[in-house]
Amino acid sequence: MRAVIPFKKSNAKSRLSSLLSEKERGEFALSMLRDVAGTLVSSECFSVVDILTTSLIDIENVNIVLAEKGLNEALNEYLMKMSSHSINEPVLIIMADIPLVSVNNIKDITASQSDVVIVPGRFGGTNAIFIRNPSSFRVDYYGASFLKHCDIAKGNGLVCEVFDSFNLSTDIDEADDLVEVLIHGRGRAARCLKSLGFGISDTKGRVGVKRDE
Amino acid sequence: MRAVIPFKKSNAKSRLSSLLSEKERGEFALSMLRDVAGTLVSSECFSVVDILTTSLIDIENVNIVLAEKGLNEALNEYLMKMSSHSINEPVLIIMADIPLVSVNNIKDITASQSDVVIVPGRFGGTNAIFIRNPSSFRVDYYGASFLKHCDIAKGNGLVCEVFDSFNLSTDIDEADDLVEVLIHGRGRAARCLKSLGFGISDTKGRVGVKRDE
Repeated sequence: MRAVIPFKKSNAKSRLSSLLSEKERGEFALSMLRDVAGTLVSSECFSVVDILTTSLIDIENVNIVLAEKGLNEALNEYLMKMSSHSINEPVLIIMADIPLVSVNNIKDITASQSDVVIVPGRFGGTNAIFIRNPSSFRVDYYGASFLKHCDIAKGNGLVCEVFDSFNLSTDIDEADDLVEVLIHGRGRAARCLKSLGFGISDTKGRVGVKRDE
Repeated sequence: MRAVIPFKKSNAKSRLSSLLSEKERGEFALSMLRDVAGTLVSSECFSVVDILTTSLIDIENVNIVLAEKGLNEALNEYLMKMSSHSINEPVLIIMADIPLVSVNNIKDITASQSDVVIVPGRFGGTNAIFIRNPSSFRVDYYGASFLKHCDIAKGNGLVCEVFDSFNLSTDIDEADDLVEVLIHGRGRAARCLKSLGFGISDTKGRVGVKRDE
């Protein structure tokens, strides 16, 4: 069984630019990636954890695969290469910005007997997808990819399961999302935000983040 | 085992007023309540499903309990009454605005052996809480209630579990949330929004809702 995390280093997490400088965003994105990669490695579910990235990064216990293309092209080429090399093992594609993911989440997803397990993010996104036979599936991210992935599975006659998880649905894209890392995170991403001076603010019943001046 | 759903009918879901009239908001809030109550009843986990409400409503297979007070006061009085009547059975407190909740979610929560199971919503909220011994706990909603409930459990020496669910974390409060009902909902709330002319919009990769003119 394999796992692959797509990762774009350049101008990472641009929607957080109201709160974080470019350097801080890079650092935070890398801390989230390390949380996700670390969880995959700790789960001991995978023979290989690949990071599909546009530029070299240094992370322990994973395999770096350079890819110049867009997300869909890079991932579909990755799936195709697995098929053409007759690597017919299941693969988990998982996003780099879901630092709350737990080892138990990974064990539960990969224990599924379904052909495809889709893990929704908010707004119709797909934050992880487990594909039992990589030659039988192609990905189509952006927009309501959750619905597109359900349709692709159905169109290919595959048994598809939806995996219900707050941890995995919580992709960290915008300022509002940071509070979830501070409240629920126990890993590098939470420590990164705290070291940058972020804390939880709770004024008039509206919970958000504040930053030390 | 009991379940209780707090529900406020008057001026329900005011944060949806940019998209829905007061009458429509009332109708939508009631459709979500019916989804949650229906799921609790279908789960067959409870001897009684109570709705703790400020005004009379007509819902099948549940028990209506009128309460004038605020959320915390009403729920803590409910827990205290259970204790004083020596009804020492476990109770699930669950919010009325999480229509994606499934029968399996309810079975999984109530199967827990922990003293308290806390189900987080976004922004530090608590969307459901399962209390094995009602006399041992009091609730403290608003703000980062998830953290407060964890602290209350810890302070009372209770074993506390966090239940990880996208379905249950998805409380429908704001315009942005409606798309989750349209994408993932299969019940009355989704049908209500569709009957009011709402559909999914997917422009430039940003998924939201649109309404027929």
